[in-house]
Amino acid sequence: MSSDFPALYRLGIVGAGQIARMTHQAAVKLGITPRLLAEESDDSAALAAPDAVFGHPDSLVGFADTCEVITFEHERLDLGLLRRLEESGAKIRPGTKTVAAAFDKMHQRRVLLNRGFPVPVFSEVRSPDDLIDFSAVFDWPVVLKSIRAGRPGEKGVWIVENQHEAMAVLSENADRELMAENFQPIIKELVVIVVRRPGGNTRAYPVTETVQTDGVVREIRSPASVGHRVATEAKELATRIADELDAVGVLAVELFLTTEGLVVNELAARPHNAGHHTIESTPTSQFENHVRAVLDLPLGPTWQVAPAAVTMNILGGFDGVDPAEHLSEALSVEGVHVHLYGKRPKPGRKLGHVTALADDHELARDMARRAEAALQGRRPW
Amino acid sequence: MSSDFPALYRLGIVGAGQIARMTHQAAVKLGITPRLLAEESDDSAALAAPDAVFGHPDSLVGFADTCEVITFEHERLDLGLLRRLEESGAKIRPGTKTVAAAFDKMHQRRVLLNRGFPVPVFSEVRSPDDLIDFSAVFDWPVVLKSIRAGRPGEKGVWIVENQHEAMAVLSENADRELMAENFQPIIKELVVIVVRRPGGNTRAYPVTETVQTDGVVREIRSPASVGHRVATEAKELATRIADELDAVGVLAVELFLTTEGLVVNELAARPHNAGHHTIESTPTSQFENHVRAVLDLPLGPTWQVAPAAVTMNILGGFDGVDPAEHLSEALSVEGVHVHLYGKRPKPGRKLGHVTALADDHELARDMARRAEAALQGRRPW
Repeated sequence: MSSDFPALYRLGIVGAGQIARMTHQAAVKLGITPRLLAEESDDSAALAAPDAVFGHPDSLVGFADTCEVITFEHERLDLGLLRRLEESGAKIRPGTKTVAAAFDKMHQRRVLLNRGFPVPVFSEVRSPDDLIDFSAVFDWPVVLKSIRAGRPGEKGVWIVENQHEAMAVLSENADRELMAENFQPIIKELVVIVVRRPGGNTRAYPVTETVQTDGVVREIRSPASVGHRVATEAKELATRIADELDAVGVLAVELFLTTEGLVVNELAARPHNAGHHTIESTPTSQFENHVRAVLDLPLGPTWQVAPAAVTMNILGGFDGVDPAEHLSEALSVEGVHVHLYGKRPKPGRKLGHVTALADDHELARDMARRAEAALQGRRPW
Repeated sequence: MSSDFPALYRLGIVGAGQIARMTHQAAVKLGITPRLLAEESDDSAALAAPDAVFGHPDSLVGFADTCEVITFEHERLDLGLLRRLEESGAKIRPGTKTVAAAFDKMHQRRVLLNRGFPVPVFSEVRSPDDLIDFSAVFDWPVVLKSIRAGRPGEKGVWIVENQHEAMAVLSENADRELMAENFQPIIKELVVIVVRRPGGNTRAYPVTETVQTDGVVREIRSPASVGHRVATEAKELATRIADELDAVGVLAVELFLTTEGLVVNELAARPHNAGHHTIESTPTSQFENHVRAVLDLPLGPTWQVAPAAVTMNILGGFDGVDPAEHLSEALSVEGVHVHLYGKRPKPGRKLGHVTALADDHELARDMARRAEAALQGRRPW
């Protein structure tokens, strides 16, 4: 297996979803062919990349032997295993300090709080009593969260209005570790994508805004419609967190803009859904900059080339519509960039995204929505 | 083999060089995984795409059985075979009418002349006497050309100043069919890339200008520095040729701007080196529009997003320098787009290209040249 690996830049990617697929594409542009550790032969990236290795993420040890640098597209990994690999000389990027914070949300909260970053009030929920105590102090609603990332599409956040709802979530998720957070009214949800090289060189993309429907991000707007002060503060906050965690590669910092100011919501130590628009909207996509960063190559520019970029996620519906069957209708929306991931349709599954660039957000959103509707098989009358 | 081919858009690409590599990438973006018919396991596209089939281009019949649509990245194919495949129902795109003109330069000249397109005076050279007769009428220098395309990097055009030089070329190429053309002083070499759907819908990219050094294209500038009248005439000419040949997919029309006006130099029925800049300089690259066209999907916009785009080809030198070893220096040239093809270095081989976008050609060329020099291992002092 190792003998036929290209000599330079032996990059391994753990995971083979759409993030790995787009990261692979960015690497190929640079003449690099990463090797993938996939789980299923119809994984999105395994469909488009050669020589994927198939195995459970825990089969990482053998895989790591063939790579010089290893990066990840998901958080379903054994941190102990990564630490042992790192100790034995493997370049795990981002490093385990970042991975620990991204994989374990309680640990993340503690680290951020200790370093003085703004986070919501939080508490671990080891028993129903912990939750009752928390709600007694901070009142309902309470935000319940899974401490570890689930599989793609698996719910990990619940906003519960009362004790009855809370107990239902607890009993349905008895096998998962949960934590509670104080619910804060949110003005906007923002994401800052920062990319950082091992030496500390960092670049941030313009602040983006995500718009949820039914708890799922459907639309991403870049740049976010926030003032200069908020945008600057958000970028500084994200960059300081990346430095603090010695992050390498893309760190996506999800923020809440509340009446009290900016609060850190989540960290993801990988290219992020809110940065897919960078493929067309910036000179260097988040995927290419992630590859550059993990291989310790110079980073590329991150400024936005158009005044407005809007991405709509293409999610599988309950009607079983396959967006690939409606590609022609979507491509007839002039100027929209259509990305499909090659996945079989399943309700709630991310099957692709569309990005539109325009002079203003209204126009970009209109274009993206028309393409999204077309891919979903909805027709204008 | 056919059982695991994705159900929709069963696209086959014959050839696995950099054109196939970039076409594959454009298809993957749309959720399509083309299958490649490659020759060697280290072919550029075979390194980056899964499930390539290996075989001589003549093994096309078995390959064609697994595809719905077949397209090509080179001209080294048996036209009779393609005709038989087309007759048996395979969708050969571009069609054999276009392929015939692209593969056989004598046929191409005759077709263009018959339809009233401007071409140089030409004649087949079956014997030294044919050439002596031609030079007696049109005088030296004479342009000698191989009627059929050679392998990548193989010389196919010679400008001979006298009978002695001409006879040397004839004897060195005794196994190849040659033709002679009247030498015309060239003001500029232009390329128009046109893309056409089966129904006839056509779009043209901005006219580009190629700059040769030692008979090899090193630099491509887009748009070409020509007046509006020449640009319009060039686009109209290319579009009419595409219509005349019922072309499907990209047709690259190479033109000479002479003191007498525009003259058709060559046709290539595939994405073309002079269009690589469209990956970054237009909303829809020539590769994506080629995929869309051959699958009869709506074409995307072809306007240029920046005032100036310059591409420099990265050619293997006699010093054996591997550009991949200098990727870091090249990426440090801010804003340049670096593409490497994963090929082993060999003198004269196309190993990659760099594209720079800027407000003017001077600036774009300066950026592209700095990146090219860096990849070639040349350092500023």
